[in-house]
Amino acid sequence: MRIACFQGPEQADTPEGNLALLARVAKEARNGGAQLLVAPELFLTGYAIGAAAVRRLAEPLDGPSLGAACRIARSEGIALVFGFPERAGDIVYNSAVAISAGGSVLASYRKTHLFGDVDREQFSPGAGQPQLFEIGAFKAGLLICYDVEFPENARMHALNGADLVIVPTALMQPFDVVARTIMPARAYENQVFIAYVDRCGRETPFEYCGLSCVVGPDGTDLARAGRGEALIFADLDRAALDASRRINSHLGDRRPELYSRLTEGTERS
Amino acid sequence: MRIACFQGPEQADTPEGNLALLARVAKEARNGGAQLLVAPELFLTGYAIGAAAVRRLAEPLDGPSLGAACRIARSEGIALVFGFPERAGDIVYNSAVAISAGGSVLASYRKTHLFGDVDREQFSPGAGQPQLFEIGAFKAGLLICYDVEFPENARMHALNGADLVIVPTALMQPFDVVARTIMPARAYENQVFIAYVDRCGRETPFEYCGLSCVVGPDGTDLARAGRGEALIFADLDRAALDASRRINSHLGDRRPELYSRLTEGTERS
Repeated sequence: MRIACFQGPEQADTPEGNLALLARVAKEARNGGAQLLVAPELFLTGYAIGAAAVRRLAEPLDGPSLGAACRIARSEGIALVFGFPERAGDIVYNSAVAISAGGSVLASYRKTHLFGDVDREQFSPGAGQPQLFEIGAFKAGLLICYDVEFPENARMHALNGADLVIVPTALMQPFDVVARTIMPARAYENQVFIAYVDRCGRETPFEYCGLSCVVGPDGTDLARAGRGEALIFADLDRAALDASRRINSHLGDRRPELYSRLTEGTERS
Repeated sequence: MRIACFQGPEQADTPEGNLALLARVAKEARNGGAQLLVAPELFLTGYAIGAAAVRRLAEPLDGPSLGAACRIARSEGIALVFGFPERAGDIVYNSAVAISAGGSVLASYRKTHLFGDVDREQFSPGAGQPQLFEIGAFKAGLLICYDVEFPENARMHALNGADLVIVPTALMQPFDVVARTIMPARAYENQVFIAYVDRCGRETPFEYCGLSCVVGPDGTDLARAGRGEALIFADLDRAALDASRRINSHLGDRRPELYSRLTEGTERS
């Protein structure tokens, strides 16, 4: 299965402009043979736009912007994953949605691990991980940005059977280590593909890292962007995944009866 | 605190020869200013020496070889960590021991996650993680080789307050990814120092990777060996650790109430 990852800055504050961008990039991705296009965290609106703007632009899963995105998926014939501010009554989440090539919502996810002041001022944390969804021959799970820095979150997807973890992100300087080192580790230790799709450029007060990547279960890059706008492609090989898992049997070698400490609180002073 | 890591092949099957090597390297490490010397997994005997040899050479924590190692630590004035086959009645574990510069056993650990046929034929798995021990201004925890490839194990040490995770290992080809990628990830995600000390050279049927490293909490190498025998040094800076933790607050941002899946079994087919 070929996937495409769009690393880009979008027009802050204008879902309409970003939907037009999504349509343009979806066509380019489909022309490049991709079955899935992934775009960054809060692609629909911009990330650091302030709590008031987030609240004004947030919409539910059946809102007008997501409806437009479903139509783009269907008309271009490509599955989509991207981030958006999700309204649920008075609460706003930092969410991501997966839409099938037929234009149906396959899954959505509310970021559980909020990062820093911007996230906490703008959003409420999600309550848990969603079900996996199927795309091509793969089971996929969603995480958002800071979530994947916690080994616990990618591990839970892997334990549930994920083959691919898709991570819209907004990784900013000076955290290159996350894109360069943590993503390959997550892929290897869980024997999954990871698609980590970042923003790029400046959005006050942040300078984003770029460095979006698709990493294979051997921990090597299948595709990696630089600092600027990019549309990168990677082919996910089911047979390579199965072969890697025969050599790297970590999931079967776990000893969960020893891990109860992980569900207790932190005692570090 | 300066630590030294000895990456080397030792003489298979002869604890006496390896204790002589330990004394020589301990003196060199102390002359280089190190307060702690770390040697590889099963340094005392060799790793892939067969179940019969392991059983013959295994000894308890108060056995003669460990007594000799305690005398080396005391006479050279340097703390030691290394691997040895530990006898407990009829059971043999793949263990590591930490000995103070005064010659006392500070901690010992029995590998909990056995790797492949050689480990399973030679050893029984340990039952859990030990208490941390103090060395200089740091709290340290022990893991052995495959253990640290599981994010769960380093995480539990970090949750218990570890500043440094010491990992004698016997990493063989083709698993360079573990030394190059997983160790920096473990250090960063847990905000700890990692000392990962491998064997090198050939020990039928294995060709070891070398690539021993000391990694800081920012995920960058403080020291790294190549493929051959080496004694590498690294300075662990308490202030740098504290500063890194102020920026990288992962441990405090965990949501353990969401992680119950980690203590259940694996459902992957």
